[in-house]
Amino acid sequence: MARTPRHRRLVLPLLCLLFQGATALLFAVFVRYNHETDAALWHWGNHSNVDNEFYFRYPSFQDVHAMVFVGFGFLMVFLQRYGFSSVGFTFLVATFTLQWATLVQGFLHSFHGGHIHVGLESLINADFCAGAVLISFGAVLGKTGPAQLLLMALLETVLFSVNEFILLRLLGVRDAGGSMTIHTFGAYFGLFLSRILYRSQLEKSRQRQSSVYHSDLFAVIGTIFLWIFWPSFNSAPTALGDGQHRTALNTYYSLTASTLSTFALSALVSRDGRLDMVHIQNAALAGGVVVGTSSEMMLTPFGAVAAGFLAGTVSTLGYKFFTPVLESRFKVQDTCGVHNLHGMPGVLGALLGVLVAWLATHEVYGDGLQNVFPLIAQGQRSATSQAVYQLFGMFVTLVFASVGGSLGGLLLKLPFLDSPPDSQCFEDQIYWEVPGEQEAEAQRPLRAEEPDTQA
Amino acid sequence: MARTPRHRRLVLPLLCLLFQGATALLFAVFVRYNHETDAALWHWGNHSNVDNEFYFRYPSFQDVHAMVFVGFGFLMVFLQRYGFSSVGFTFLVATFTLQWATLVQGFLHSFHGGHIHVGLESLINADFCAGAVLISFGAVLGKTGPAQLLLMALLETVLFSVNEFILLRLLGVRDAGGSMTIHTFGAYFGLFLSRILYRSQLEKSRQRQSSVYHSDLFAVIGTIFLWIFWPSFNSAPTALGDGQHRTALNTYYSLTASTLSTFALSALVSRDGRLDMVHIQNAALAGGVVVGTSSEMMLTPFGAVAAGFLAGTVSTLGYKFFTPVLESRFKVQDTCGVHNLHGMPGVLGALLGVLVAWLATHEVYGDGLQNVFPLIAQGQRSATSQAVYQLFGMFVTLVFASVGGSLGGLLLKLPFLDSPPDSQCFEDQIYWEVPGEQEAEAQRPLRAEEPDTQA
Amino acid sequence: MARTPRHRRLVLPLLCLLFQGATALLFAVFVRYNHETDAALWHWGNHSNVDNEFYFRYPSFQDVHAMVFVGFGFLMVFLQRYGFSSVGFTFLVATFTLQWATLVQGFLHSFHGGHIHVGLESLINADFCAGAVLISFGAVLGKTGPAQLLLMALLETVLFSVNEFILLRLLGVRDAGGSMTIHTFGAYFGLFLSRILYRSQLEKSRQRQSSVYHSDLFAVIGTIFLWIFWPSFNSAPTALGDGQHRTALNTYYSLTASTLSTFALSALVSRDGRLDMVHIQNAALAGGVVVGTSSEMMLTPFGAVAAGFLAGTVSTLGYKFFTPVLESRFKVQDTCGVHNLHGMPGVLGALLGVLVAWLATHEVYGDGLQNVFPLIAQGQRSATSQAVYQLFGMFVTLVFASVGGSLGGLLLKLPFLDSPPDSQCFEDQIYWEVPGEQEAEAQRPLRAEEPDTQA
Repeated sequence: MARTPRHRRLVLPLLCLLFQGATALLFAVFVRYNHETDAALWHWGNHSNVDNEFYFRYPSFQDVHAMVFVGFGFLMVFLQRYGFSSVGFTFLVATFTLQWATLVQGFLHSFHGGHIHVGLESLINADFCAGAVLISFGAVLGKTGPAQLLLMALLETVLFSVNEFILLRLLGVRDAGGSMTIHTFGAYFGLFLSRILYRSQLEKSRQRQSSVYHSDLFAVIGTIFLWIFWPSFNSAPTALGDGQHRTALNTYYSLTASTLSTFALSALVSRDGRLDMVHIQNAALAGGVVVGTSSEMMLTPFGAVAAGFLAGTVSTLGYKFFTPVLESRFKVQDTCGVHNLHGMPGVLGALLGVLVAWLATHEVYGDGLQNVFPLIAQGQRSATSQAVYQLFGMFVTLVFASVGGSLGGLLLKLPFLDSPPDSQCFEDQIYWEVPGEQEAEAQRPLRAEEPDTQA
Repeated sequence: MARTPRHRRLVLPLLCLLFQGATALLFAVFVRYNHETDAALWHWGNHSNVDNEFYFRYPSFQDVHAMVFVGFGFLMVFLQRYGFSSVGFTFLVATFTLQWATLVQGFLHSFHGGHIHVGLESLINADFCAGAVLISFGAVLGKTGPAQLLLMALLETVLFSVNEFILLRLLGVRDAGGSMTIHTFGAYFGLFLSRILYRSQLEKSRQRQSSVYHSDLFAVIGTIFLWIFWPSFNSAPTALGDGQHRTALNTYYSLTASTLSTFALSALVSRDGRLDMVHIQNAALAGGVVVGTSSEMMLTPFGAVAAGFLAGTVSTLGYKFFTPVLESRFKVQDTCGVHNLHGMPGVLGALLGVLVAWLATHEVYGDGLQNVFPLIAQGQRSATSQAVYQLFGMFVTLVFASVGGSLGGLLLKLPFLDSPPDSQCFEDQIYWEVPGEQEAEAQRPLRAEEPDTQA
Repeated sequence: MARTPRHRRLVLPLLCLLFQGATALLFAVFVRYNHETDAALWHWGNHSNVDNEFYFRYPSFQDVHAMVFVGFGFLMVFLQRYGFSSVGFTFLVATFTLQWATLVQGFLHSFHGGHIHVGLESLINADFCAGAVLISFGAVLGKTGPAQLLLMALLETVLFSVNEFILLRLLGVRDAGGSMTIHTFGAYFGLFLSRILYRSQLEKSRQRQSSVYHSDLFAVIGTIFLWIFWPSFNSAPTALGDGQHRTALNTYYSLTASTLSTFALSALVSRDGRLDMVHIQNAALAGGVVVGTSSEMMLTPFGAVAAGFLAGTVSTLGYKFFTPVLESRFKVQDTCGVHNLHGMPGVLGALLGVLVAWLATHEVYGDGLQNVFPLIAQGQRSATSQAVYQLFGMFVTLVFASVGGSLGGLLLKLPFLDSPPDSQCFEDQIYWEVPGEQEAEAQRPLRAEEPDTQA
C-alpha cells in the first residue's frame, strides 16, 4: 500500500529523532540534579532524609501524572475510529512536552551557575505544561497528524512557559491550579489554532465524528481519573500545610457541585429529558477548572460549591448551544469542546480569582497571608492592586494564547507535515496499523463449536 | 419521541437543583474550614507546615476516592446495556452524597461554635458514606431511575451517619474499615429496599441482565481498583503509626486469601470446572470486607489469611447457591449480589471483630491498646465487655439497615419518581442518549477501501 | 458439556486449596508483625507515630501494587479471545505469589527468633516477585493453563528470592529497580520455559493470536499505568531522601526518551510509515527497565535520557526483527515479546549499572556514597571491583533464569496439569464461562423499537 510518497512517511520519525537528539544534547550541557536530588549536595547539608520536600509533593505529583496520561488520554478516546490516535498521540505529544518543558521552564526558573537544576518541582511543572498542550490537542483532535502535533507542542511549550513566567514571576499573579496559565491558555491557543486550520469540507468525515457505546465507556475512564485526582492537580504547587489542605478541599467540593449542575442541565436542555454522555464526560469537570486560581485562597467551602455549580452550568450550556455557533459563525471546529470545559470555566476561574484576591484581608488570612499573597503581606500591594494584577494576568494570557495559537496554525499548515485529508479525519487507519473486527467475526464459528472436541 | 409526560422529565433536573440549592445554602450558613485548613488558624499556632495531618492521610484518601468512583463505578458496568447508567448514576449519587454527608456527619461530629469544621477527615468520611450508598445501589441496579437513587441517597446518608454515630461515639464500638457501618449497613439497606421494590415481572428484562465480553472486562477494572486500594480503605481512619501500617498489611493478606479461595470454589462448583467471571469480579474482594472491623486490631497475619479464605468461600458459595434462593423464596432481587460481597462478609467481619476484641490483652497490645481499644486501656471496660458492645453494634446496624431500607423502598415508590417499566430494566436508553453500533457498521465499507486514495 | 475427565477439572481447585492451606499453616507458625506494625513493639519504643517508615514508602507501594495488577493485568488483555484469562490468571498467580514470596523472602531476609517479621517492606518485595512471575507469564501467555501457572509461580518465587538474596546480600550488588533481579530474571525464566514447552503446531491457533480494536485499547490502560507509576517502582526500595527523589526523576526522563524513540522507530521500520500499536504498548516502557539498576545512582538526567532512547530503540527493533527469528530459529514462542521489553532492556540495564558503578567517585556522591554503594564508602571495595560484582550478578541471574526456566518447563509438562491443546490456545472459553456476543445481537431489534411504548 503506497499510502504516501516516501519522503512524507519519514516526517514523523525524523521529527522525533531530531527533537530527541536536540533535547538530549541540551540535557547533557545544561541539566543537573538540584540540591534535593543530588547525592553529594543533599548529604552535604546533613538534612534529615525525610525533610526532602519530595515526600510532601510526590503523592500529588503521581496524581497529576496520572491525570495527564490516563485522564486526558482516555477522555479523548470517545471517537469511534480514533482511539489509537487519541491515546497514542497524547502519549507522544505529552512525553515530548515533558522533556522540552523541563528545558524551557528550567532556563526561566532554575537556571543558575550555568545549569538548570531539576527536581520533583520540575516534573510537576512539566506535567502542567503537558496538560495545556493536551487541552489544545482536544480542540484539533482528529484533524491533525502527529508531526503537526509535535510542532504545536514545540511552540506552545515555549509560549506557555513565557506566559507563566510573566504572570507568576513578573506580575506576581497567583494561579496555582492554572485557571489562566493552563486552562485559559491551552483552550484559546487550541481554538485560535483550529480557526486557522478551519476545514469547510469537514462534513466529509462527519460519520466518524461521534462515539460508539464502548468508546464512550473508555472516555469515562478519563473523566473519572481527572475528577478524582483534580484536588491533587490544584494543590500540587501550593504552599505546604494549610495551603495544600485547603486547596484540595475546595477543589473536591467544587467538583461535586459542577457534577450535580451538569446532570441537572443536561437533562433539562435535552429534547426528551435524557442525559447526554458528552456533558457528563466533560462539563462535570468544570468545577476543577473554575477554582484553579482561587482554591488556594480563603474561598470558603460555600464559595467552592457556588463556583462549581456555575461552571458546570455554563459548560453544559456551552456544549448544547455555543459549540454549534462557534463552528457556524466563528469557523472554529472544536472537537472535544475545550471552549466549554477549559475556555469559559478558565476565564470564570480567573475572574473568581480577581474577586477573592480583592476580598483578601489580614484578618481572614492571618500569618498565612505570606503564603497566599506574599506581596500583600509584605505591604508592597493592596488587595485591590493584587486584584487588578490578577485581571491583567488574564488579559496577558488571552493575548499570548490568541497570537500564539494563530502563529501555531500557520506553522501547522506547512505542507510537509502530512495533514489528514478532509475525508479521512477522525480515522486511525491513516496513521496506525489497525486490527480489523474481521478476526472477531472469523472467530464466531469457532466459538460455536465445542472448544474441546479436538482436545 | 414523546417518552414521558413533560412533568416527569423535569423530575431529575429539579431534584438536582433543589438538593444542590439546599446544600449550598447549608454550606454557606454552617460549613467553615477547620484549624488545619484555615490560613489564619493554622499559622496562628506556629506549627511546622508538614505536621499537618493531611500529609499522613492524603495518600489513603486519594485511594478511597478512587475506589468509590473508579471501583464501584466500573464494577457495575458488567451489564451489557447499562454501562452509561452504572457509571453515570454512581457519579451522580456519589457526588450528591459527598456534599450531603459533609453536612449530616458535620452536625454529628464536628459542630461547635455554631459551625461545622471541615478538613480532610470530612472528605474521607463522606467518601465512606458514598461507599455504603453505592453498595445499596448495587442491589437495585437497573431497576431504579436516577431520581429514585437521589432520594435513596438522601435518606441513607442520614441513617448511615446516625448509625455510625451511635456505634462509634455512643457505644464505643471499633469499626475502622466499616464491616458493620459501611458493608453490613449498605448491603441490608439495599436488600430490604429491593424487597419492597420487588418486581414479579422482571423476567421481561432478563435478556439484558447479563454481560457481554467487553462489559465484563470493564467491570474487572472496577474489581482491580477495589482490590489494590482496599488496604488504604481500611487504614484511612485508623491511628497514625503502627495502626495504619498494621491495618494495611492485614487487609493485603486477607485479600490474597479471598482471591485464592474464590478461584478454587468458582471452579469447584461449576458444572465443568470452568471459572465464572462474576465470582472473580466480586467474591475475590470479600477479604477486604471481612477484616473491616478487625484489621486495625492484633489480628495476626495468619488471622487475616484465614478470615480472607473464609470470606471468599462464603461469598462464592453465596453467588452460586444463595442468590437464586434469595429471589425465589425471599423475593429479593439483588442485581450485583451485594449480599454475597458485602452482606455476609460484613456480618462475618463484625463477628470476627467480636472475637478479636474479646481476645485483647494488655500484653499483646502494650501501650498501643490506647489507640485500638481506648476504653479498655482506660479501665472503663473489660475485653469481654468490649466484645459484647461490638456484637450489640452489629445488631443496631442490622436494625437501622432493615427498617431504613424498608422505609426507603416505600419512599422510592412515590409515583412521580419515574421508575423504569419491567420491560425496560437494565436499559440505558430510557435515561441516556445512546450512540448506536450502526455508525461502526456504516464504517466498515469505508475501512475496506484504501484510506488515502483521496489524499 | 463433558469437557474434561472429572479428575482433570479438579486440578485447579485442589492446587489452590492445597497451596492456600500450606501457606496459611506456615503463616500461623512463622509470620509475625515487625516492630513497626506491632501495637506493643512500636509503642514500646515511644516513637513519634509519623516516624513510621510506612509514611515514606506507602505511596510508592500503592503505585507498585497498581502496576502489578492493573499494569501487567491489562497489558496482556490485547489478545482478542483471551482477556478473561489474561487479567484473571494475572490476578490468581500474582495473589498466590504475594503469599508465597512473603514466606520465602521472609526466611531469607527477616527471619530471627524463629519468626518471619513482616511489614510494608515485605509487601513491596512480594509485589516485585509477582512482577517477575508475570513477566514470565507474558512469554507463555495463551499456551498454559492456570494450574500450570500456579506451579510456575511456586518454583519461580523460590528461585527469584534465592537469586535476589545472592545478588543483594552475598555479592553486594545494587539493583533497586530490578533490571537484573526482576526483568532479566523474569524474562529469561519465561523464555527458557517457553522453549521447553515449544508447540510446533501453534499455527492452529494463529487466528486468535492477534488483537481487535477494543482489546488493544484495554491493553493501553495497562501500558499507561506501568508508564506513569514506574518512577515509584524503581524508587520504592531505595534510600529515603535524595535516593528516592533521584530515582524517580531518572526513571521519568528515561521513559520519556524510550517513548519518543519507540514512536520514531515504529514508524520508520513499518512498510508504509504507520505506527504499530504493539510497539507503543510495550517498547515505550523499556526506559523504565533499562534504568532499573542505575536510576538510584548518579546517572545524570542526560544519562537517563540516553539510556531510555537506546532501550526504546532496541526494544522496537526486537519486536520487528528479532521475535520472528526467536520462534523460527530458536523455537521460543514469546507471546508478549517479553524478550524485547524485559530481556534485552534488562541486560542493557545491568550493563549500564556496571558502567555507572565503575564511574562512582567520592567526589560525585559525597556522603551519599554510603547509601548507594556502602561497600565502596566503607573502603571494602573499589568502584572497579563493584562494577565487576555487578557484571557477575548479571551472569548469576542469567544462570538462575535459564536453568530455572528449563526446570520449570519440565515441571509444567506434567500431564495432569491440563495444558490447552494446540488448537485451543489463546482461547478463554476453555477455562471460563464466556458470555456470548449473541445477547448483544438479540438486543438490537429491541433497541430499534421505542423503549417506552410499553411504559
